[in-house]
Amino acid sequence: MKAVSPSERSTEHVPDEQVRGVIALAHHCGAKGWIPATSGNFSVRIDAHDAAITASGSDKGKLAADGIIRASIAGAAHPRASAEAPLHYAMYRLSPKVGAVAHIHSLPSVLASIHFAREGKVRLEGLELLKAFQGVRTHETHLDVPIFANDQDMDALAGRVERQLKADSLGWGFLLAGHGLYAWGQDANETLRHLDAFDYLFTLVLKLKGIPA
Amino acid sequence: MKAVSPSERSTEHVPDEQVRGVIALAHHCGAKGWIPATSGNFSVRIDAHDAAITASGSDKGKLAADGIIRASIAGAAHPRASAEAPLHYAMYRLSPKVGAVAHIHSLPSVLASIHFAREGKVRLEGLELLKAFQGVRTHETHLDVPIFANDQDMDALAGRVERQLKADSLGWGFLLAGHGLYAWGQDANETLRHLDAFDYLFTLVLKLKGIPA
Amino acid sequence: MKAVSPSERSTEHVPDEQVRGVIALAHHCGAKGWIPATSGNFSVRIDAHDAAITASGSDKGKLAADGIIRASIAGAAHPRASAEAPLHYAMYRLSPKVGAVAHIHSLPSVLASIHFAREGKVRLEGLELLKAFQGVRTHETHLDVPIFANDQDMDALAGRVERQLKADSLGWGFLLAGHGLYAWGQDANETLRHLDAFDYLFTLVLKLKGIPA
Amino acid sequence: MKAVSPSERSTEHVPDEQVRGVIALAHHCGAKGWIPATSGNFSVRIDAHDAAITASGSDKGKLAADGIIRASIAGAAHPRASAEAPLHYAMYRLSPKVGAVAHIHSLPSVLASIHFAREGKVRLEGLELLKAFQGVRTHETHLDVPIFANDQDMDALAGRVERQLKADSLGWGFLLAGHGLYAWGQDANETLRHLDAFDYLFTLVLKLKGIPA
Repeated sequence: MKAVSPSERSTEHVPDEQVRGVIALAHHCGAKGWIPATSGNFSVRIDAHDAAITASGSDKGKLAADGIIRASIAGAAHPRASAEAPLHYAMYRLSPKVGAVAHIHSLPSVLASIHFAREGKVRLEGLELLKAFQGVRTHETHLDVPIFANDQDMDALAGRVERQLKADSLGWGFLLAGHGLYAWGQDANETLRHLDAFDYLFTLVLKLKGIPA
Repeated sequence: MKAVSPSERSTEHVPDEQVRGVIALAHHCGAKGWIPATSGNFSVRIDAHDAAITASGSDKGKLAADGIIRASIAGAAHPRASAEAPLHYAMYRLSPKVGAVAHIHSLPSVLASIHFAREGKVRLEGLELLKAFQGVRTHETHLDVPIFANDQDMDALAGRVERQLKADSLGWGFLLAGHGLYAWGQDANETLRHLDAFDYLFTLVLKLKGIPA
Repeated sequence: MKAVSPSERSTEHVPDEQVRGVIALAHHCGAKGWIPATSGNFSVRIDAHDAAITASGSDKGKLAADGIIRASIAGAAHPRASAEAPLHYAMYRLSPKVGAVAHIHSLPSVLASIHFAREGKVRLEGLELLKAFQGVRTHETHLDVPIFANDQDMDALAGRVERQLKADSLGWGFLLAGHGLYAWGQDANETLRHLDAFDYLFTLVLKLKGIPA
Repeated sequence: MKAVSPSERSTEHVPDEQVRGVIALAHHCGAKGWIPATSGNFSVRIDAHDAAITASGSDKGKLAADGIIRASIAGAAHPRASAEAPLHYAMYRLSPKVGAVAHIHSLPSVLASIHFAREGKVRLEGLELLKAFQGVRTHETHLDVPIFANDQDMDALAGRVERQLKADSLGWGFLLAGHGLYAWGQDANETLRHLDAFDYLFTLVLKLKGIPA
């Protein structure tokens, strides 16, 4: 409720709502053990042009406001941005419905990304918790989570993701083989719910095949 | 101990005891990770006609009193009731001994519901922790937990459950295939103990068959 | 430091040291999830005749001083004693070196008790953590944990345990098939260390055989 | 900020930075369950001659400053030093880049040390989290973690480790078969990150082979 001075409204200013959203995502994933060894990154859309996103490095499970930067989703370089920021920007460009993006390295997501790499996707099917995804009203359906090959050239990888996901329907997440999960939602809360659902469903699908997950 | 005004004694008033019971069940299951992605619902009987039950949506692991409504177990529609409320009401109608009902999506219960779907039940047998269930005095017995097919038509599903469980002895829980567990007890505390026992016994039965649970 | 009145020095009085020891064991095992559904019981020796032991029922993870009674290890009936108290008393009678006893239902101990039931024992061998047991100085040894058949007649079971363990060397624990673990040490702290070591070594032995534990 | 008197600057004095580092390592590993039954030990380099290291015994998950001693990495005997201290000293002698050393008994590290004992090493390969190790910039690489046979003669074992690791490149950790992991980094923080990465990668490598870890 305090007045915001013009200087704070600079391109660097991150509104409180987005700060809270990024921190909620980061702390939740830290507590779950999904971002080991200072990995993972999180963002929340500010408007049609910018997003709040975690800066490179540090333990995101202990993230505070000063570890969050404001960046252009057009992809202009930012000195403190994470190497994986281009994948976040790509998602915001793909659809105005993407309001928050989380990237984690949870064991079930990495195990699923390798076990199902040949199929190019993980099929989640016939399970009640599919209804946790926005827009899903019944367990009598399936959700295909695409798997992309891992790549250290993040701009090239973001380009591939952007081209392929444009062609299909967008869904709520994709996997990078041997690397981890990208998930999103219309806001931070929905993204959190989708992360929980992916974790649960990947674990279930693996265990149903007798794979210890 | 403060006086309750007549207006608070409306059909909407939920007594303190039932509020505490529903919250205890919800917080316990949240802490255990049994209600991922805002799933799960919990109720405690108020009298022969009404029960206190969690309203639809929200993270039940953080449930507060304003997330609990008073509903008729006869099944009259309530604007804030969860879609799964009819299954709770059915249990209260089946027996006056049902004093509290919990519905969770824990991984071991869902894994068991799929692995044993063909048998139509999970047999729990010869294990000391069977004695955690009300009325069981020895491990030299068995408990059959029935498995019903999942269905998004909750009124139809509640009808099937009510008809089949009437015919057999009631037991302390049933599974919905690919969905989760319904468990109950004579009060909230006993229901909590039964939930712990089901979780432990489903995990044990699966692991004894070499299934990672 | 406050004066203890003569009436408090009755046969019912439990000294502070033993109260602290029993509570430390109970809270540790509760936090680990080893005593689900109000199961488990814990005791610490007071002298050559008596022990402090948890009363029957209630969640031991939240144990307070009023849940601890003073009982004779000669086995005289106590109105609040747990049904399994005779097994504690038997251990105290077997050796003056037994200073504390814990009984838990942890999943790895129950899985091991069933998987190795035919051999009549679990062999723990060649692992560094064997050195956690009092008197063990090298991993180049083995420890055999005997497995007894479960029995609801606790006096008969205690008699069998007392006769068989007298014949062999005492060790630091035994298993009841499909039921759980009894472990002890020279005091509460050592018993706690032994419980941690059993949990770790049973888990390891099972996983090394490809059994999900 | 308070002045340190000359007497405190004795050979026994452990500077605050090293105290904080050792405690951070010990508490982290305690919370993770990696040092069961009072096992594990931790050290941080003070200078070219000395290191701060945990004294023998006690639960390191609750470590306080008085459980930390100052010891010469030349290996002079210290009355309170752990039996495993010579392995820490060997690492500090091997390279000035070793700024902190942790020794843990985590289940995944012990499982990996036994499953891959015949190969003499665990190969970690093609996984994104390899980038958590200092100096690794891509997943398209591999890291070989050597496995040494366990030995209760710690001086002999330290000698073997020092000779073999000198010959090869140093890496960031080694395993003792049936015993546990030694890991290090340029400081306590980096060592912590490396511990998390080893835990995650050993778990992943085992689960990818269908081994419950």
